[in-house]
Amino acid sequence: MYFGQPINKLFGGDPITGMKKLSVDLGDRSYPIYIAPGILSDPASYLPHIKGSQVLVITNQTIAPLYLKQLCSALAGFSVSTLILPDGEEHKNIETVQQIFDRLLKDKYNRTATLIALGGGVTGDMTGFAAACYQRGVAFIQVPTTLLSQVDSSVGGKTGVNHPLGKNMIGAFHQPNAVIIDTETLTTLPEKELSAGLAEVIKYGLIRDPEFFEWLEDNINHLLERDNEYLVEAIFRSCKNKAEVVAEDEFESGVRATLNLGHTFGHAIEACQGYGNWLHGEAVSAGTMMAADLSRRMGWLSDDDVGRIMNLFEKCRLPTRPPIGMGPDDFLQKMMLDKKVLDGNLRLVLLKSLGEARVCVDIDPVLLRETLPPPN
Amino acid sequence: MYFGQPINKLFGGDPITGMKKLSVDLGDRSYPIYIAPGILSDPASYLPHIKGSQVLVITNQTIAPLYLKQLCSALAGFSVSTLILPDGEEHKNIETVQQIFDRLLKDKYNRTATLIALGGGVTGDMTGFAAACYQRGVAFIQVPTTLLSQVDSSVGGKTGVNHPLGKNMIGAFHQPNAVIIDTETLTTLPEKELSAGLAEVIKYGLIRDPEFFEWLEDNINHLLERDNEYLVEAIFRSCKNKAEVVAEDEFESGVRATLNLGHTFGHAIEACQGYGNWLHGEAVSAGTMMAADLSRRMGWLSDDDVGRIMNLFEKCRLPTRPPIGMGPDDFLQKMMLDKKVLDGNLRLVLLKSLGEARVCVDIDPVLLRETLPPPN
Repeated sequence: MYFGQPINKLFGGDPITGMKKLSVDLGDRSYPIYIAPGILSDPASYLPHIKGSQVLVITNQTIAPLYLKQLCSALAGFSVSTLILPDGEEHKNIETVQQIFDRLLKDKYNRTATLIALGGGVTGDMTGFAAACYQRGVAFIQVPTTLLSQVDSSVGGKTGVNHPLGKNMIGAFHQPNAVIIDTETLTTLPEKELSAGLAEVIKYGLIRDPEFFEWLEDNINHLLERDNEYLVEAIFRSCKNKAEVVAEDEFESGVRATLNLGHTFGHAIEACQGYGNWLHGEAVSAGTMMAADLSRRMGWLSDDDVGRIMNLFEKCRLPTRPPIGMGPDDFLQKMMLDKKVLDGNLRLVLLKSLGEARVCVDIDPVLLRETLPPPN
Repeated sequence: MYFGQPINKLFGGDPITGMKKLSVDLGDRSYPIYIAPGILSDPASYLPHIKGSQVLVITNQTIAPLYLKQLCSALAGFSVSTLILPDGEEHKNIETVQQIFDRLLKDKYNRTATLIALGGGVTGDMTGFAAACYQRGVAFIQVPTTLLSQVDSSVGGKTGVNHPLGKNMIGAFHQPNAVIIDTETLTTLPEKELSAGLAEVIKYGLIRDPEFFEWLEDNINHLLERDNEYLVEAIFRSCKNKAEVVAEDEFESGVRATLNLGHTFGHAIEACQGYGNWLHGEAVSAGTMMAADLSRRMGWLSDDDVGRIMNLFEKCRLPTRPPIGMGPDDFLQKMMLDKKVLDGNLRLVLLKSLGEARVCVDIDPVLLRETLPPPN
């Protein structure tokens, strides 16, 4: 517990600018993450990471009127174009990525081009995928503007689009050249989306950082009030946790799977409800409670542990139960198509304790049934 | 010169089966290439390289009736499906790759799936790209059935599709798990395509292997007669040259560019003629003669050197001049969109001598104009 301590001292950081910098360590694909209020409009954020002269800034219709002008003003001296895509998960498909390719080719962008993604996870995932595939790979910089994308997709290099038959089924691993997280952009984020982002923040505490989980229990109100200083801390600590996991396992063959706590149940919820009706973070919240419940049934978590998790999600006004109407077979059918299924064996991330995750195969089907909602 | 020597002794190889094996050395992405007549229907070719149980064999309408049944008979014990795509460069686009994704998802292929590409470069490039992107990367095995794809796309991990505004503009680097080259498949290859493949074979001699160039001058007739023993040798030596270059420079930041001898001129020819009217190898042949001509104008090659190259191409019945009707501006405009253009600077691969290539910037525009065809 850190009552009364100045939080900057807890995690380090530049005492003057308040900026925190994190390095994602992936050999010759390493890149920095900068976190601070206001850095979106600072030329110094971009300059070291743009190699050629051609820059394409890709954003969406919601974010463009809020931050596009600010960002472009920081890119004086480059040949900058902008592409504004429709907003929403329903546009995260190959057809929209084709629009990016069309623009790049029409305007003769070459291999030294840099793409900048300004927006949430959908914008970042599609821009990153376009950057991965355009001429077999060009540079890109992420400027995530939602809490979820700041703490999740900004680390790990996962890019891609949805397919009518599955979420994120088409994609590539492609690391950004830099990630620029401006916490000021969270002032315009709808409350529901702030909460959804907090679900992923809490996840990092649950899977590997019990100290951070306790810090969140103590400070969740500061985050809900969007206090810049606390946001910088929570984002830094989340990215640091994710970066450590990814550095250990870039291509998700092992420990990286623990980042999917709540996601196998969560993806089933998203798939059944139609993408976009439940926010990803909301589905992860309900999915994490299901994973916690199953962990309790396996004797790993206590009733009190589960209560603490639920309490934190509820403070964030996040759903803690699956949607009404989803039966056990809805879950099982969708879960078997999840990317975490290897050769027909369901793998689930469960909690050995608060702050420690395990990837489990050979789940007891009786316990799993008890965790799933009853048949309708 | 190797008159009278048994060619197997020249390059090594298994004296009993006649099979040659080459390892493409790329760290944890290394893979073997097997070259021999008849190995397409040998289960041992595939077995060590298929990890899961689900296999999708992707081929085209021309190749399916010739070799699909043979290949599938070697895959007993796996869950095998087949997908037959339309044949031709005009189908090498994202829409066709979408058909592969649709099938993979409809049939619930998971991350341990293996895709097998049976066909020429178009099939291999699209299958490889689908494998690169499906669930962010699954395994694939190449079974190239044209000489061009055997000596070119089987090494290097380049995958991708065309865009209406440029060839191979959308793609990924994705290494196969194995390449199985069955020289028997060349018995059904149209003569024109055999010649086009020989253009790339000759290229390896020109850019880095003068000994191989001389061997080709001596033995080109055996190759034109499709003698299996000579084909195995020529394919092995070509792949070995390419593998050495790629191992040195996987992502084409340096020496790998020398593999593009004749390709910048060649791509301009293909783009102006419409893809598919000139075969890739034919365009490369004419493009290589243009590069040789420019190299001569720069004082690097002698008239005799240029004559030897032309002589070899002519024996293969390959074009040695650009198509009638293409003017200098047709070339310049298309060449500036080539992937080898960095930040607006044209880079060309030229020959310092027979067997030694150089990547050149700052080309003298006067000499370049002299090499290009005169205005119409």
